[in-house]
Amino acid sequence: MKNDPGRRTFIANALKASAAATLLNIPGFAMALQQKKYTIKEVMDIILKEVPGAPFKTTVDTLKSGDEQQTVTGIVTTMFATVQVIEQAAKLKANFIIAHEPTFYNHLDDVNYVANNRVVQQKQALLKKYNITVWRFHDYWHSVEPDGIGYGVLKKAGWVQYYKPGQRILQMPPITLEKLVAHLEQTLAIKHVRVIGDLSQTCARIALLPGAAGGQTQIAIVEKEQPDVLIVGEVHEWETAEYIRDARQMGGKTALIVLGHSVSEEPGMDWLVDWLKPKIPGVPVTHIVSGDPFTWM
Amino acid sequence: MKNDPGRRTFIANALKASAAATLLNIPGFAMALQQKKYTIKEVMDIILKEVPGAPFKTTVDTLKSGDEQQTVTGIVTTMFATVQVIEQAAKLKANFIIAHEPTFYNHLDDVNYVANNRVVQQKQALLKKYNITVWRFHDYWHSVEPDGIGYGVLKKAGWVQYYKPGQRILQMPPITLEKLVAHLEQTLAIKHVRVIGDLSQTCARIALLPGAAGGQTQIAIVEKEQPDVLIVGEVHEWETAEYIRDARQMGGKTALIVLGHSVSEEPGMDWLVDWLKPKIPGVPVTHIVSGDPFTWM
Repeated sequence: MKNDPGRRTFIANALKASAAATLLNIPGFAMALQQKKYTIKEVMDIILKEVPGAPFKTTVDTLKSGDEQQTVTGIVTTMFATVQVIEQAAKLKANFIIAHEPTFYNHLDDVNYVANNRVVQQKQALLKKYNITVWRFHDYWHSVEPDGIGYGVLKKAGWVQYYKPGQRILQMPPITLEKLVAHLEQTLAIKHVRVIGDLSQTCARIALLPGAAGGQTQIAIVEKEQPDVLIVGEVHEWETAEYIRDARQMGGKTALIVLGHSVSEEPGMDWLVDWLKPKIPGVPVTHIVSGDPFTWM
Repeated sequence: MKNDPGRRTFIANALKASAAATLLNIPGFAMALQQKKYTIKEVMDIILKEVPGAPFKTTVDTLKSGDEQQTVTGIVTTMFATVQVIEQAAKLKANFIIAHEPTFYNHLDDVNYVANNRVVQQKQALLKKYNITVWRFHDYWHSVEPDGIGYGVLKKAGWVQYYKPGQRILQMPPITLEKLVAHLEQTLAIKHVRVIGDLSQTCARIALLPGAAGGQTQIAIVEKEQPDVLIVGEVHEWETAEYIRDARQMGGKTALIVLGHSVSEEPGMDWLVDWLKPKIPGVPVTHIVSGDPFTWM
């Protein structure tokens, strides 16, 4: 099902007209106005139609709980389907959570990653109690063009105009590293970040890699693009952090900003609401912020 | 070679005596006072004699640069053989760095982890310029009993008396989570930590796991031991952090303190100096703090 705003505008305008009452008596129009019901499977199919190459043979984007034949009562998008997010979804009477990251504390959501994990069992029972289906939406959302997470972050940071398809680097008006950090904290609603670099250095070439892409990817981008700053969600400290520290000690200029994993990608799951809503008219779609789990001391 | 402080005290006292000059003319005494020279290989062998099961068939504890046949001029222990640590070692005229963590930004120190990595090449050139041999000392140091890193941290935190061989839990006088954080920051010289938990909760059963043991190990300990608090160096945010957040939301009590990787294990590489010195008398052994790479903002 394609989003067809033209048709919806037509209907809306038609209703505004004095002929509305008459139109509503025509069977076809009445049906169009009645809210269509979707199963979870139907919503997933509508989404996957927009993802180049989907469905993927190998992906972590599987159902983590529930049943795809359920009728959707409401959708929640979030970074992590935490217990708190599940409780909030239940309050909203939403039975479909689309989460970017794992539900059961490892990348493959292997519930036996740690044997007899009581927290996993409690969470499974909670999801069953509320009859909530969780779908991970990671590989697919990163595969739309532009990358759904990346675009959401660009939007929230006010940087969409600096994005060039196919280019890894955002070329921006020069800003000091210190002001860049302040801008990110303010626009992305992040309380604390960790930084390696000279706070007074100028940043104009920016590599933006929300989430935890891994040291290999993060370091490769710095080697190839030599950005003024690399912005990431999470690092292995023994990989990217030490690489940046050493590089700077030997004359390199690339700084590093580590935003935190969850908060770095959250805007992408918020943007999913606007992206998805027009495709499934009438279905409530809400973003719930799972947020930074840490208190910084 | 065993440490034999008794014999060394005897020599020192003998020298203080007026008979010193006479004693020095006796060939045996003169030889004993002459410093023995060690090759890097000899020092490694002396160390490995103390490690149960060493040498290991598979280990990341290999030489990352240099030559084991070199004569040791001085030893530096550190967490990361950063460029700064290498420069300081060179100033100390030490040609052997024993580092707990990787030199080339990935666990296996694969220099082709990222192809044509210029920072790797620069660092290799620097090590060659100073003729410095780097040995990773990770698996072996964790395998002595008690674990060399763990013991160093216990010593620095003033907790040695709570350690019971074979037990995962430190049973301590109750302390609030907030005071525990302050104690760790003060004794381990850490500026900032990240915490999940209720700062007023009482902690008496403590699981201490410096470094980045990985989510599987970290979560398994919490599941098995149900400690009041788990103290680690580094986490995957999508594993241990989310597990702890959810567990607490469903009634669990275990809090989490994330110290930072480097600073969490640093005391273990400091303790290596005291452990090693008596085994290689006359060789200067110095600890250099590689430290937290981050500025927290």
